[in-house]
Amino acid sequence: MSELRLDPTTREWVVISTERARRPHDFAQASIHPLPQEFYSTCPFCPGNEAQTPGLSASYSDPESGKWRVRVVPNKFPAVRPEGSTRRKEEHPLALSLDGVGIHEVVVESPLHNRLLGFMSDDEVFDVVRAYRDRLVTLSAMPSVRQVTVFKNHGASAGTSLEHPHSQIVATPVVPWHVRHQYDVATQYFDERGRNLYSDLLAFEAEQEVRVVCATPRFLVIHPYASRRPFETWVLPRSARASLGDLDDDELREFGTVMRDTLRCIFTGLNNPDYNQVLYTAPAGDECEPYYSWHLRVYPRLTAVAGFEIGSGIHINTSLPEQTAAFMREIASSCCGQ
Amino acid sequence: MSELRLDPTTREWVVISTERARRPHDFAQASIHPLPQEFYSTCPFCPGNEAQTPGLSASYSDPESGKWRVRVVPNKFPAVRPEGSTRRKEEHPLALSLDGVGIHEVVVESPLHNRLLGFMSDDEVFDVVRAYRDRLVTLSAMPSVRQVTVFKNHGASAGTSLEHPHSQIVATPVVPWHVRHQYDVATQYFDERGRNLYSDLLAFEAEQEVRVVCATPRFLVIHPYASRRPFETWVLPRSARASLGDLDDDELREFGTVMRDTLRCIFTGLNNPDYNQVLYTAPAGDECEPYYSWHLRVYPRLTAVAGFEIGSGIHINTSLPEQTAAFMREIASSCCGQ
Repeated sequence: MSELRLDPTTREWVVISTERARRPHDFAQASIHPLPQEFYSTCPFCPGNEAQTPGLSASYSDPESGKWRVRVVPNKFPAVRPEGSTRRKEEHPLALSLDGVGIHEVVVESPLHNRLLGFMSDDEVFDVVRAYRDRLVTLSAMPSVRQVTVFKNHGASAGTSLEHPHSQIVATPVVPWHVRHQYDVATQYFDERGRNLYSDLLAFEAEQEVRVVCATPRFLVIHPYASRRPFETWVLPRSARASLGDLDDDELREFGTVMRDTLRCIFTGLNNPDYNQVLYTAPAGDECEPYYSWHLRVYPRLTAVAGFEIGSGIHINTSLPEQTAAFMREIASSCCGQ
Repeated sequence: MSELRLDPTTREWVVISTERARRPHDFAQASIHPLPQEFYSTCPFCPGNEAQTPGLSASYSDPESGKWRVRVVPNKFPAVRPEGSTRRKEEHPLALSLDGVGIHEVVVESPLHNRLLGFMSDDEVFDVVRAYRDRLVTLSAMPSVRQVTVFKNHGASAGTSLEHPHSQIVATPVVPWHVRHQYDVATQYFDERGRNLYSDLLAFEAEQEVRVVCATPRFLVIHPYASRRPFETWVLPRSARASLGDLDDDELREFGTVMRDTLRCIFTGLNNPDYNQVLYTAPAGDECEPYYSWHLRVYPRLTAVAGFEIGSGIHINTSLPEQTAAFMREIASSCCGQ
């Protein structure tokens, strides 16, 4: 059973995951060696090895062949587990904890071991974002769940331990502090201005143009004004809604295509860098509020987060978003067929 | 001129450092190859190459030989610079910025290219923490400075770009958001309980014992209850004071020795891992308030911070602080001569 513990100096939750526990001796650095074969006999996410994954949460199939195109499975080494209670245990005022109760799933994005999101067809990537949306809706409705985080780690430095393309979904029994904070900032902005912060941000960036990478009928892709990292990329929906869960299939299909194009540009322009991507969405229960807007952020891992960032929370970005956006706009014009 | 920009979605400052700007093409991953020689003819921090560093902010010498033991020099590629104004520029309500005004210094910890902090003599490490204290006091008194962050990156994955042992000091014109938040939590605790949060935390950990690595007359070294990372280590002073700047030489000498022993244990127990260390201290101007306590945190880089951590702010720690502290206590008993 893993456990959530509260840091009394910041009021931030930490997952102490004994399920994944390594002994103190086991902290040698691991690295991932990409192998040439397209199919792996030992990869648990490749076709033929479905029995190696512990259960099946959802599956999306090719309508013609009937074969699966996307599978959502429980994580074999989950950070949180369905069993347990959300009741807080206060061993001491400075030692508040609860069970690591929640859901940790893996979205296997393709049956192909080397099929990157950035190179999928419209139909393939639609199935991936459908899985995101459907699981988000299902998990958010569970009584113990307060937040669903959908994210992807690409490459060893971004924290991937498995090579086969996959995203992850973690449903936690607490609203993470970063999310709560973002949500509070947006709520306060709405209280003050009477408008959605993200709608105003989108209008501002669309008007300025210099940080826009790509624009589609429903989305704007930008390198934000205060980018923390070089080539940090946000995909903002023009229609602000608190949760991705509210998108219909048409909107979702366009989102999938924009995400795919964004990742292809990053692959092409930066030579397949490691990256993390995170889908930001409102806390469970706040989906109908007008304050927040769901969106996607992609963070290429081009520079190290070092002591200054860890200690201060201030990131030092060594590139100008206006320059990186112009560079990526050029890539987009050739590789995304705008 | 670098620039600070405010992220309107979190109200966090970001440094956009055009001084260090790389062009979009220049983001190939670099790695550091340690070389065998003890002295480097090209290393700007080795004796004989002092002219390669731009100026000298402070220097500490061996009283017998008269040779320098620690030098504090301006960073050649500073994230912030002395010139500029702290006046905010509001190009648009969603685009707030100010000049990247401040001080960025390097503490060259030893004339020896391969002299690690963990293996220094009491006198040598005293000079290092004296440099920390003295620069903290001097820089905090500057009118444009709101916060002084003293940190160290050890190893390539921790963000080091130079091999010669060094720490860094960044004085910023804004209180970083993490620091402000920590300070606010401590202030609220004081308001509610009438006691210093860090004193209570120290008393709690000392009583529980299980997470204590080492105890000295003036310090307690712990793996905190809600450790974000495996082997995250805090050095807490028994006497809570807002700033390291208030320590006298006796206290400072003991702090240097405890820091040295802590780093030696981490070197020995984890086979010289990359790590970051950060000295937490109150914002400039709040040094006399009773709310906060300065302390040191060391974060070995044993696991990757991935998409879930980036998106949620919740860290998944794959080890139990009680187990890692017991392991490190064992190391400490043999290598720190307790």
